[in-house]
Amino acid sequence: MAVKKAVCLLSGGLDSSTCLGVARREGYECYALSFDYGQRHRYELEAAARVAREMGVREHRVVAIDLRQFGGSALTDSGLAVPKGRSGDEMSAGIPVTYVPARNTVFLSLALAWAEAIDARDIFLGVNAIDYSGYPDCRPEFIEAFTRMANLATRVVEGGEGFRIYTPLIAMTKGDIVREAVRVGLDPAWTHSCYDPDEQGRSCGRCDSCLLRLKGFAEAGVADPARYQDQ
Amino acid sequence: MAVKKAVCLLSGGLDSSTCLGVARREGYECYALSFDYGQRHRYELEAAARVAREMGVREHRVVAIDLRQFGGSALTDSGLAVPKGRSGDEMSAGIPVTYVPARNTVFLSLALAWAEAIDARDIFLGVNAIDYSGYPDCRPEFIEAFTRMANLATRVVEGGEGFRIYTPLIAMTKGDIVREAVRVGLDPAWTHSCYDPDEQGRSCGRCDSCLLRLKGFAEAGVADPARYQDQ
Repeated sequence: MAVKKAVCLLSGGLDSSTCLGVARREGYECYALSFDYGQRHRYELEAAARVAREMGVREHRVVAIDLRQFGGSALTDSGLAVPKGRSGDEMSAGIPVTYVPARNTVFLSLALAWAEAIDARDIFLGVNAIDYSGYPDCRPEFIEAFTRMANLATRVVEGGEGFRIYTPLIAMTKGDIVREAVRVGLDPAWTHSCYDPDEQGRSCGRCDSCLLRLKGFAEAGVADPARYQDQ
Repeated sequence: MAVKKAVCLLSGGLDSSTCLGVARREGYECYALSFDYGQRHRYELEAAARVAREMGVREHRVVAIDLRQFGGSALTDSGLAVPKGRSGDEMSAGIPVTYVPARNTVFLSLALAWAEAIDARDIFLGVNAIDYSGYPDCRPEFIEAFTRMANLATRVVEGGEGFRIYTPLIAMTKGDIVREAVRVGLDPAWTHSCYDPDEQGRSCGRCDSCLLRLKGFAEAGVADPARYQDQ
């Protein structure tokens, strides 16, 4: 039987790293794709490289695409503050300032380009629609619409196999994701979640991403190996 | 009345330049977007800058995104030959080697990111489904699917105005496009179409793009100001 190839979007955070682990468990040969898009810090990309290496991917590519030039997000614009200490209700009340315009659309488009070039049909994306920060491009209806578009965009042979986008974490709570991470052999210490780490790479513990991560470890009853600034 | 803003994808070829002219005629303030994606030559980007300047766009951005790293196209891989001298039937028989994997998907995604950031709702794309080279991402059904996806991907307010993708050339022949170019005040001498120009920037006259361009000028009864290698 031919090897099944998958392109796995990998930010270096807990979710995308767990998602990569799921793809590996399902028997895929994994091609991990990360983006140097002008993030405020480099810890994410270091984590992505570590996870890719430890999880034994076939290839890890980091594509440079400067999303800062479009502005509009606290994740790429150091002039905008990352919100801290928000409650779950506040997070789900609207789209936050950390939203990067059309980010998942851009990332999935480039994953599609790579998948088409290496003749892979499966793309893994670690989005989550339960414990999430209110980003519109994490919802199942977005994923379905992207898949439909992808199969019209590309040179897929009439009647041949189409592209599929797998989002194995989409209906999980953060606690479920931590448990799944452990099951797929991911050491959470390899990952980085914080939007706003200090100069030593320690997590702030108070941005949306830290709060969701901490909630997940608490729910799963697992110790979070990340280093926090108040420790 | 508020100024209507449009993001206009601009390669520097005849079609995208004419499309920009249509947006200008419709009263849009135009934000032209080009890509330095690892094309084999720079004449296209020089033409895009010239067209943007002459057509009075509000802003012209050139985004660097290296699509060569995904390989698979004669437009980005100098190891693959650009086909020459193909008939119209040969062009429409299948997807050619000049197809860049998922290119329009990637370009539209980045146009969407910019549009969202500057609060534009309209994107202009000069694709054509009549006299074209068989690229799947030039078809109306692809454009419709992309639009649907875009409106699920972004922070468009419930019930608010959605994104629209305008493809004013999609049903035109190349002859129609040349006539439209003249009507919107575009000087075709500003544009560059050839996939494989020589070192002096002269067009080959035999690649799909040159053949379609020459066909358009012949149909419209207009002299093509491009410099060709056999002249």
